[in-house]
Amino acid sequence: MDADFDDLKSRLAEHDDLKHAAALLRWDQATYMPEGGNAARGRQLATLERIAHARLTDPELARLLDKVTPAAEREGDASFAARLVRVARKDVERATRVPAAFVGDFVNLRAELYDRWTRARPANDFAAVAPLLARNVEMSREYAGFFAPFDHVADPLIDLMDPDVKTASIRALFAELRGALVPLVEAITRAAPADESCLHRQYPEADQLAVGSEIASRFGYDWTRGRQDKTHHPFMTKFSLGDVRITTRVRTDDLSEALFSTLHEAGHALYEQSIDRSFEATPLAEGTSSGVHESQSRLWENQVGRSLPFWRGQYPKLQAAFPAQLGDVSLDTFYRAINRVKRSLIRTAADEVTYGLHVIMRFDFELELLEGSLAVADLPEAWRARATSDLGVTPPDDRDGCLQDVHWFDGPVGGAFQSYALGNLMSAQFFDAALRAHPSLPAEIEAGHFDTLRTWLVTNIHVHGRARTPDELVLGATGSPLSTEPYLRYLRTKYGALYGL
Amino acid sequence: MDADFDDLKSRLAEHDDLKHAAALLRWDQATYMPEGGNAARGRQLATLERIAHARLTDPELARLLDKVTPAAEREGDASFAARLVRVARKDVERATRVPAAFVGDFVNLRAELYDRWTRARPANDFAAVAPLLARNVEMSREYAGFFAPFDHVADPLIDLMDPDVKTASIRALFAELRGALVPLVEAITRAAPADESCLHRQYPEADQLAVGSEIASRFGYDWTRGRQDKTHHPFMTKFSLGDVRITTRVRTDDLSEALFSTLHEAGHALYEQSIDRSFEATPLAEGTSSGVHESQSRLWENQVGRSLPFWRGQYPKLQAAFPAQLGDVSLDTFYRAINRVKRSLIRTAADEVTYGLHVIMRFDFELELLEGSLAVADLPEAWRARATSDLGVTPPDDRDGCLQDVHWFDGPVGGAFQSYALGNLMSAQFFDAALRAHPSLPAEIEAGHFDTLRTWLVTNIHVHGRARTPDELVLGATGSPLSTEPYLRYLRTKYGALYGL
Repeated sequence: MDADFDDLKSRLAEHDDLKHAAALLRWDQATYMPEGGNAARGRQLATLERIAHARLTDPELARLLDKVTPAAEREGDASFAARLVRVARKDVERATRVPAAFVGDFVNLRAELYDRWTRARPANDFAAVAPLLARNVEMSREYAGFFAPFDHVADPLIDLMDPDVKTASIRALFAELRGALVPLVEAITRAAPADESCLHRQYPEADQLAVGSEIASRFGYDWTRGRQDKTHHPFMTKFSLGDVRITTRVRTDDLSEALFSTLHEAGHALYEQSIDRSFEATPLAEGTSSGVHESQSRLWENQVGRSLPFWRGQYPKLQAAFPAQLGDVSLDTFYRAINRVKRSLIRTAADEVTYGLHVIMRFDFELELLEGSLAVADLPEAWRARATSDLGVTPPDDRDGCLQDVHWFDGPVGGAFQSYALGNLMSAQFFDAALRAHPSLPAEIEAGHFDTLRTWLVTNIHVHGRARTPDELVLGATGSPLSTEPYLRYLRTKYGALYGL
Repeated sequence: MDADFDDLKSRLAEHDDLKHAAALLRWDQATYMPEGGNAARGRQLATLERIAHARLTDPELARLLDKVTPAAEREGDASFAARLVRVARKDVERATRVPAAFVGDFVNLRAELYDRWTRARPANDFAAVAPLLARNVEMSREYAGFFAPFDHVADPLIDLMDPDVKTASIRALFAELRGALVPLVEAITRAAPADESCLHRQYPEADQLAVGSEIASRFGYDWTRGRQDKTHHPFMTKFSLGDVRITTRVRTDDLSEALFSTLHEAGHALYEQSIDRSFEATPLAEGTSSGVHESQSRLWENQVGRSLPFWRGQYPKLQAAFPAQLGDVSLDTFYRAINRVKRSLIRTAADEVTYGLHVIMRFDFELELLEGSLAVADLPEAWRARATSDLGVTPPDDRDGCLQDVHWFDGPVGGAFQSYALGNLMSAQFFDAALRAHPSLPAEIEAGHFDTLRTWLVTNIHVHGRARTPDELVLGATGSPLSTEPYLRYLRTKYGALYGL
């Protein structure tokens, strides 16, 4: 067993190295690469990914997995060995089920579709992407087919992002969520809108970056194992447990952009930085799902970073950093500004309350497209109708309608959006559980102390990496399966107070 | 032939991709990587290098090379196909001759030696590295043995840096060079020393970087296919012909540091940026040797960048950038300062005239160590004696004596230094040839126009990449084999005038 297990681990480490080398090439592409590097970078990434895929589908790896499984299982279901084997097997099977030729064709289709989308969106030209998008729907369905049988054709696609989460259970959660959010948005938008003009004064870039970094440090982000750079779209990426980086985007006329994207990405990074170091270079050394990842970023961004206790403590410091811009702005005005709810067209700019509705409509469209009950040609009209009914705004064009998100144009159709809403649900459920364990949390947060909260998250979530499934984490950390109740209660309490409902 | 040739090219491209991915990992390590990334980065680099080595030694690649060779040769010795096959075969044979186990042991030895050297140098503790350095000499000799028969044991090690250049011919060139440099240094150091205090005023970092960038741009460095970052030691690196980066180091109390390292690295980068674009992703897409590379960096740094015509044109701009620091400094004083010759201990800080002597003593020591006529234990004393006789200064300790250069502590002993001096010789011979073709060069350089010079270099040197050997380039571009005459004439003329000899 020992020699075989070591062999297994060194093969998995090699795969891990290739994957993280590719991640660095992508980080560089988004941060510092000169434009002349583009063509070769695409080829270099394809090479690394092809070799990584070949390593994962090497029959010798599958054989080794089979060989070590009995001994690993004897160590107990929760043992490192058993979990490693289970997770590695899942990765290997996923890589092996899909024929290499299909993988290549699928990647090529999406590269072409993405390229076309980058021009079609500014030109508001849905017709230019429709045929390839239809092909993407077809190939996404074919991809799912390699994992048959399944309860729903979207299940294998969702599983890529949120392992073991089924379409049916998401549908049930989202029906509840939608049923509650639509009237909540109605009620809020009947109230007087908050004044957010204080966020749109001139905020120098360097000062914004300094404020964001300082808060990330207080949250516990370890700068000796990370760094922050500027990119067009903020993201978190990891090259090892000792090198977890975040990026942000700064707008001098919008204080909220860099600030909240920094708290959000720092939330993702805190998760990865706190995974059990002994998992390094194995497939366990990663967040367990997109949904759980999003729960961590949203928890720090929203549950903490847009809360009243937090700003009671931090707002005087923010005013000191921006005396000319915020000196005359009260805490109450600022707090209302950063929590302003409004009907809007763009998901990524949406507030906490409307956000879920943006996600649910995309999730529903994905299912209809995959099921065949919605044709790609009918998507623009369906989008307009649903935005009007759910969000209360009608997109004047497709640019800010069904062309707005990159997801369906560079990834599969299916599984692309649910994580954002699942993460929001989990963020409230996790925060609730932490609060039950530590009723002093709001006072600590107000005092600028985040250690109790972070330690609770590390112990209950972060440290486990992929060794626990999302369901195991939620149940283990909160005592209940995932539910909409904590999140809806959070929204109703917070926004009820804010908007006098 | 066609299908086989395409297969060959795609295998070579894959190797190229792995090599350049590794180069990016190294660039990141030197520029932006947080300290926590170190451990995993070492493992990731080892993985990429192991896979690249396996690709190059894949018997199928050697078989393909054999198969396409007759057809490639029929296209003529100077054809792309023939050159590609010749260069690829050289790389494949070099990778194949050395057993994989030896490669691993050699890398490990040097990693340990390097680690020990980083502590031994500041502690001035030669004894701490001596046993492993002796082992490095042994293993360097063993490495050479894999390429037997040879004229001299150093030949295979020199060939790694300067292909096809033999120990015997370097010895002959260096004997001439040393014979001329020792008395030249004597004569210069009897004259009154130049005053370099103007270089040591306070120069703000951002202004220094701006000045360096502007000159690099004028030389022709293409920033859409490159960028400059700060590192501990300046270097040039390439990830594709469209992405050739340079780094520099800034000292606010030494104007010459960032300025001349930028011109130097830009010279390297101009070479790589101008290689025939059709060579991309093949082993031809690289400078042909370390010596030729150094000729390009030294040509722009010294033949151009420390010349009187250049500063006649540029000095008013430099004064305008630093009015408080240089407003009261005449062109003559500045020109003398940047060309000050002095006996000194450290190679990397040496001037143009003494530099060659630093290199030659190292080259001679390498030969003696490999031949066994010098024992590692006797190196410190031999260094002191040679520095005293050739350079006229005696190192007070090993820190600034035989421990000063990293080369023997992280690379093989043998072949590590000759390129620096060969590059100086070539830089003068190339510049002379360009001047014969374009007598207007000094006037153009004074006017800030570098296109004629750059075009001559591109046409005669850069564009050919590795498709021509160093000897072919020198002969083709200058009409003569490599000689010390142009370089010695350059030094005698320039420094004769500067020091009134």
